[in-house]
Amino acid sequence: MQNKTVTVVGLGLIGGSIARVLRPFVKKLYAIEQNSDVLDFAQKQGIVDVAPHNPLEESDIVVLCIYPGDSLVFVKENVNNFKKGCILTDTVGVKTPLMNLCKKLNPPFTYIGGHPMAGREVSGFINSDKNLFSGASFIITPSDNAKAEQISLIEKFALALGCKVVIHATADEHDKIIAYTSQLPHIIATAMCDTPLLVKHKNYTGGSFEDVTRVAKINENLWTELFLENKKHLADEIKRFTASLEKIGRAIEQNDSEALRQIMRKVRLDKEAIDGGHS
Amino acid sequence: MQNKTVTVVGLGLIGGSIARVLRPFVKKLYAIEQNSDVLDFAQKQGIVDVAPHNPLEESDIVVLCIYPGDSLVFVKENVNNFKKGCILTDTVGVKTPLMNLCKKLNPPFTYIGGHPMAGREVSGFINSDKNLFSGASFIITPSDNAKAEQISLIEKFALALGCKVVIHATADEHDKIIAYTSQLPHIIATAMCDTPLLVKHKNYTGGSFEDVTRVAKINENLWTELFLENKKHLADEIKRFTASLEKIGRAIEQNDSEALRQIMRKVRLDKEAIDGGHS
Repeated sequence: MQNKTVTVVGLGLIGGSIARVLRPFVKKLYAIEQNSDVLDFAQKQGIVDVAPHNPLEESDIVVLCIYPGDSLVFVKENVNNFKKGCILTDTVGVKTPLMNLCKKLNPPFTYIGGHPMAGREVSGFINSDKNLFSGASFIITPSDNAKAEQISLIEKFALALGCKVVIHATADEHDKIIAYTSQLPHIIATAMCDTPLLVKHKNYTGGSFEDVTRVAKINENLWTELFLENKKHLADEIKRFTASLEKIGRAIEQNDSEALRQIMRKVRLDKEAIDGGHS
Repeated sequence: MQNKTVTVVGLGLIGGSIARVLRPFVKKLYAIEQNSDVLDFAQKQGIVDVAPHNPLEESDIVVLCIYPGDSLVFVKENVNNFKKGCILTDTVGVKTPLMNLCKKLNPPFTYIGGHPMAGREVSGFINSDKNLFSGASFIITPSDNAKAEQISLIEKFALALGCKVVIHATADEHDKIIAYTSQLPHIIATAMCDTPLLVKHKNYTGGSFEDVTRVAKINENLWTELFLENKKHLADEIKRFTASLEKIGRAIEQNDSEALRQIMRKVRLDKEAIDGGHS
């Protein structure tokens, strides 16, 4: 990537963290950021280069690090400002809406969706961290017309961030999988804390409670968008999880110790297997 | 406690950890343990003292660190072997069954239930650790006839283990609270992993998934007993949680972004408040 110019759109937690780690790997690193204090600071610190009037025109890779809805607006408004043949990627947690928009627009860029599986319970440039992506999985969702060398470039980008593995998926596969592996845990943490018992019994908690509820410190604006943009898959996952919960609840109510033991034993063995063999 | 003799019944993860930390605080520390290799090793290492033929007869405090069902059997079988006026305590995660048994038996001891809010996903003496209880909450459930000095002694015992706070509750209050703060998180982790998706999508997980599912590496024999012994309270908690989950699911299906934002905002503020002020 040493001969590539990259623009990061949005210097929040994710965009800021990308900028902090990416600078040494590219020719030029520009940022588009509405908060002029943040942009000014990042430029003065050398985290990004001082950008020309329209950095998009000069960029080989543009990385959207803004909210899902804002990403759609940004692409619609700027579709004619991109350099022809460039790559558009992003870090949004749902991939279908932007993929569908790009198919409709016939844009000058090739869209290759990106999703680093990393985050924090805090937001903003102030919390950005060059080690945020260290060891994380990075999912990419290339458009049908993406060339091999373009995909390879985004893989290099992911590894430059510190991600340990790059996984390919279609946008729809991604959204279905992520409903289970990321959105459902956030909904569970929220539902677990959605009771006055949370505050009342705060001294009665141990590690299991702390872990299950950690991500309840949620960015409600971001996650409202993410949940609603992935409604169908997420509804399926909530149903599947609720059915498991009801199965366990039934076994408890019916005093069915054998069923309970079997469910937990199977789950324990699977969990031990993936934790042992997590790649 | 320097003039007290203590017997730990069961040198597993919890009993072993108690023994490792308690020895310097008491006059004599004995163990009752069926696995003679473990008992022999613990004695040779000086973790416990070599016990007389019937350590219960000499003990001022007896700490049951065995399964819930085994605890009931042990007390029934040994009710006449305890020293008159001694304290029986335990570390079992449900308190009502043993409390009810003790009320019936009119025993020579005073029962003061104990529950250190600490654990691991592994078991056995081999995994015991003198720092296991460091910083944990310790809940005690004294019998109605417990004297102030007896309660004070068990508080000292909890602090000697490294616990940071001792909380008093009735056995029923304890069981109701723990259904929410400990049992429900274990059931959620189990239900979350009760699907072939767990293994299939193991590379698509991030921190939120890892945290919500950590305790799915569960001891199925122990937790089957704990769940069934606390059936009523646990069923209530599963229902409350399921209702929250359904409320969130409905808001998603109905595209009700305002309702979603409000639920998450309230939860975030509560969670930030207790994490900031966690004592």
